Amino acid sequence: MAQPAPHHYRLIVSCPDRVGIVSRVSSFIAEQGGSIVEANQHSDLDAGRFFMRYDIQSNALSAEDFRAAFETIAREFDMAWRLSEPARPQRLVIMVSRQSHCLVDLLYRWSSGELDCTIPCVISNHDDLRALVEWYGIAFHHVPVDPADKAPAFAEVERLIEAEDADSIVLARYMQILPPALCQRYMGRVINIHHSFLPSFAGAKPYHQAFERGVKLIGATCHYVTEELDAGPIIEQDIQRVSHCHAPQDLVRLGKDVEKAVLARGLRWHLQDRVLIHGNKTVVFS
Amino acid sequence: MAQPAPHHYRLIVSCPDRVGIVSRVSSFIAEQGGSIVEANQHSDLDAGRFFMRYDIQSNALSAEDFRAAFETIAREFDMAWRLSEPARPQRLVIMVSRQSHCLVDLLYRWSSGELDCTIPCVISNHDDLRALVEWYGIAFHHVPVDPADKAPAFAEVERLIEAEDADSIVLARYMQILPPALCQRYMGRVINIHHSFLPSFAGAKPYHQAFERGVKLIGATCHYVTEELDAGPIIEQDIQRVSHCHAPQDLVRLGKDVEKAVLARGLRWHLQDRVLIHGNKTVVFS
Amino acid sequence: MAQPAPHHYRLIVSCPDRVGIVSRVSSFIAEQGGSIVEANQHSDLDAGRFFMRYDIQSNALSAEDFRAAFETIAREFDMAWRLSEPARPQRLVIMVSRQSHCLVDLLYRWSSGELDCTIPCVISNHDDLRALVEWYGIAFHHVPVDPADKAPAFAEVERLIEAEDADSIVLARYMQILPPALCQRYMGRVINIHHSFLPSFAGAKPYHQAFERGVKLIGATCHYVTEELDAGPIIEQDIQRVSHCHAPQDLVRLGKDVEKAVLARGLRWHLQDRVLIHGNKTVVFS
Amino acid sequence: MAQPAPHHYRLIVSCPDRVGIVSRVSSFIAEQGGSIVEANQHSDLDAGRFFMRYDIQSNALSAEDFRAAFETIAREFDMAWRLSEPARPQRLVIMVSRQSHCLVDLLYRWSSGELDCTIPCVISNHDDLRALVEWYGIAFHHVPVDPADKAPAFAEVERLIEAEDADSIVLARYMQILPPALCQRYMGRVINIHHSFLPSFAGAKPYHQAFERGVKLIGATCHYVTEELDAGPIIEQDIQRVSHCHAPQDLVRLGKDVEKAVLARGLRWHLQDRVLIHGNKTVVFS
Repeated sequence: MAQPAPHHYRLIVSCPDRVGIVSRVSSFIAEQGGSIVEANQHSDLDAGRFFMRYDIQSNALSAEDFRAAFETIAREFDMAWRLSEPARPQRLVIMVSRQSHCLVDLLYRWSSGELDCTIPCVISNHDDLRALVEWYGIAFHHVPVDPADKAPAFAEVERLIEAEDADSIVLARYMQILPPALCQRYMGRVINIHHSFLPSFAGAKPYHQAFERGVKLIGATCHYVTEELDAGPIIEQDIQRVSHCHAPQDLVRLGKDVEKAVLARGLRWHLQDRVLIHGNKTVVFS
Repeated sequence: MAQPAPHHYRLIVSCPDRVGIVSRVSSFIAEQGGSIVEANQHSDLDAGRFFMRYDIQSNALSAEDFRAAFETIAREFDMAWRLSEPARPQRLVIMVSRQSHCLVDLLYRWSSGELDCTIPCVISNHDDLRALVEWYGIAFHHVPVDPADKAPAFAEVERLIEAEDADSIVLARYMQILPPALCQRYMGRVINIHHSFLPSFAGAKPYHQAFERGVKLIGATCHYVTEELDAGPIIEQDIQRVSHCHAPQDLVRLGKDVEKAVLARGLRWHLQDRVLIHGNKTVVFS
Repeated sequence: MAQPAPHHYRLIVSCPDRVGIVSRVSSFIAEQGGSIVEANQHSDLDAGRFFMRYDIQSNALSAEDFRAAFETIAREFDMAWRLSEPARPQRLVIMVSRQSHCLVDLLYRWSSGELDCTIPCVISNHDDLRALVEWYGIAFHHVPVDPADKAPAFAEVERLIEAEDADSIVLARYMQILPPALCQRYMGRVINIHHSFLPSFAGAKPYHQAFERGVKLIGATCHYVTEELDAGPIIEQDIQRVSHCHAPQDLVRLGKDVEKAVLARGLRWHLQDRVLIHGNKTVVFS
Repeated sequence: MAQPAPHHYRLIVSCPDRVGIVSRVSSFIAEQGGSIVEANQHSDLDAGRFFMRYDIQSNALSAEDFRAAFETIAREFDMAWRLSEPARPQRLVIMVSRQSHCLVDLLYRWSSGELDCTIPCVISNHDDLRALVEWYGIAFHHVPVDPADKAPAFAEVERLIEAEDADSIVLARYMQILPPALCQRYMGRVINIHHSFLPSFAGAKPYHQAFERGVKLIGATCHYVTEELDAGPIIEQDIQRVSHCHAPQDLVRLGKDVEKAVLARGLRWHLQDRVLIHGNKTVVFS
């Protein structure tokens, strides 16, 4: 008789640090016949907080049983925790404006199996990228934003996100500021790519700011969206060397490659439950 | 009454992978009142081998008691293991030839507290760097190597290493090939810096080889020494961009910075028991 | 009356180094009312050879007149030279096999205006990527290669390249070795991306070779194709950090990003006449 | 009869861009029997300004004759220019506080011949680094700074700089803000290393600011000192990857290596006349 494929889980835990957490959790998993395929732990000694991510394979345990049984331990250690199942990937809504480089990159990686998610739809305030999105067999929603009254557009955006039962939202150069209520509702689930090495050059036209300042490196920052613009927890950053030879349009061109790479890395980690939020910072088990 | 300073241990384990290792080890540590400050684990799924490094603080357990008690677990899981004590840093012998850049860098880092070791002596086949070494209050041994008969020199080198009770040896651009017997005796304890991005340009004059080939990046490789030249387990590598503007002497100059950085990082990790040898490769918990 | 748009030229020169070249060439350009927008020069002092690339704008001079008038100077200084016109971009034929990442990247950059070329067709030994290529409105030729007799396929490939009047050919992971005659005929005009940091891991399955050796960085190399496999002049290289956590399939995945980036940079420079071949090396005015 | 060693000059020019500059200058050099060993040019098309640096060898021309003869051209093209002689290296005064890593690095590079300068003295507001400096045979001046009245200290500093006839001053982690008058007097000749990726984290304790913000890369910036703190023209920047594992003291430790490297590169270029100031930015012919 064929061996059933093992269940695959990810256990994400954050709790006050104290003696015995690893022992208690790993014993629980061993007792249930689970095997820890990958383990990541971090103790923030100053904050006295402990973070862990376990990649678990098990033939015995169902997700429901795991959650029910683990609840006792979680309460004992005052844990914030979740159990995710790679077999049920996140539902990711992508939001874009007119620029296509990040979208093209994400869709290609998704179609290549690099991003563990389903993409129910792409939402844009312009109609330009419809053909590209539909070529991948993904629904495209054009939701224009009226500068004089943005509320109706964002109501529609929120309705679509809700209707699609989105787990996460990625702003792949969306160029619009989300309303505070939406930021709060999806806290820790909206990822943005900012085209500078934050906290330098927050706000508009960062490459032109960088050009004016004469920096020798430009960068990009992937971060969680919060109500305060460009100030949320940073997931990933990277840079590209530039010189006096580069005009602002060269910075824009070179920056695109950094933006794509940084967003793809940050998003991949987020989708694999490798990013744990810790105040306004992140623990990334990459 | 003052709280005694906690003991600080590092437990390094490598064993066949199976269910229950983490549970068993972490429970043992918790039972002894030990706190895991930093934990690193790796499962090589293809090789079926498990690696771990635990940084442990404990008020109760002495190193002798730990070792005695742990032996049972170690046998049960067929572990290769060791317990090291940061309070008893490794004794490191540095070997150099005439070039000083790596030596200067290591001595400065050591004096700044970046390298957890004591340096009982520096051995060189030339007398050039004596003043520098002695300025740091470290003994300098000049052991000339006769090209016609190298055996006496290496006998003397081995005698010095033994007399100094060295835990590890670093070849900081020593430029001589160690005899096979010495390599075997100190297997996994002799670190070399090779001035190329191995396996490219093994052997002599790698920068000139790189120049001839017209590569656009040069590199350096920190690795454990084995009998086969430049073929031992790699600990760390890095590179530096070069161009058609650079003559061989520029590659030599630029390469020095990469050599220093790569050797310092690799050695630091080795001294902190972060490097586990796995066949001809390494697991580095950096 | 409207000012006519200025002519735009690139003058590429390589010749024995001696006093007076720059003076002679720049005076010629000034006399013709030409303005040097970008100038790059390199003297290889050992080889005694001089290289230059001038980006020139002129309202007066036609390309034919420039060429005719410059011939005198060229003969005097024994120059290898050419004058190219950005207004007449190169015709680039792309060859691929089944892997799409480099092709997708090149087509997107081309459609974004990042690559100064026209792409008359894509040739592949498999039919898999037809839909993608045709979406961009580019002709796709499927030329299967019979392992038992490759000659007919390469005759057809050569016929297509000739029919399309290709200036350059890029092997975007083509996975077939071109016959020597084709290499010779298009010397300096065929660009390959090799998925390793050459000269390490030439030949087949470089990521698996890299995994076996336990390197800490993987790389990619963009080079001109010569008869000797993976040994032609290197245009560009880059690397990506890896660790013991990465299985061969992770190296393959991570390597794709390096391959794309390195090929795109190298090809862009080639198309802008920024790469001058110098023996088995290159001078790259990037 | 032996050939006399050729004179070696560097001609640095900045002027309004127009047709014929290169022709005029290179013809002048050729007429004088000079050979251009290395040439760098840059046209800022927006600002309409042209920059050049020529490395010249000549058997005939003396520096005085060159300067006198060139004056006519300079006036014609409204040039800001200078001719420097590598045989007469700059006199560099180093200023430090208590931290030694940059000083150690600079002194070692200087003693290895990597920095083309003489170092008449080191000035510090503390006496800690005297032994190190004097080991290199360099004079050490201890000039304590009274926080309640800094003027006398800076008067003494200025007197020393003047007495030593310093061409350039490098603040190798000096930790004191120079008075405006000193900044103005030595405009373009005082180089600072700031321990952040400017404009992020200007001012005090940048690594702690970086830790608080949770950035994933830290950096360092080498720039010319102006009256406005940390706002002068940037010469060079670089970064180092960090993670949630790093405490502020780790950032400090890792940052030291970036600071050293960035300062050494920026200073080397400055000493070789490769850095041309252009408003609040730099043109770096590296």
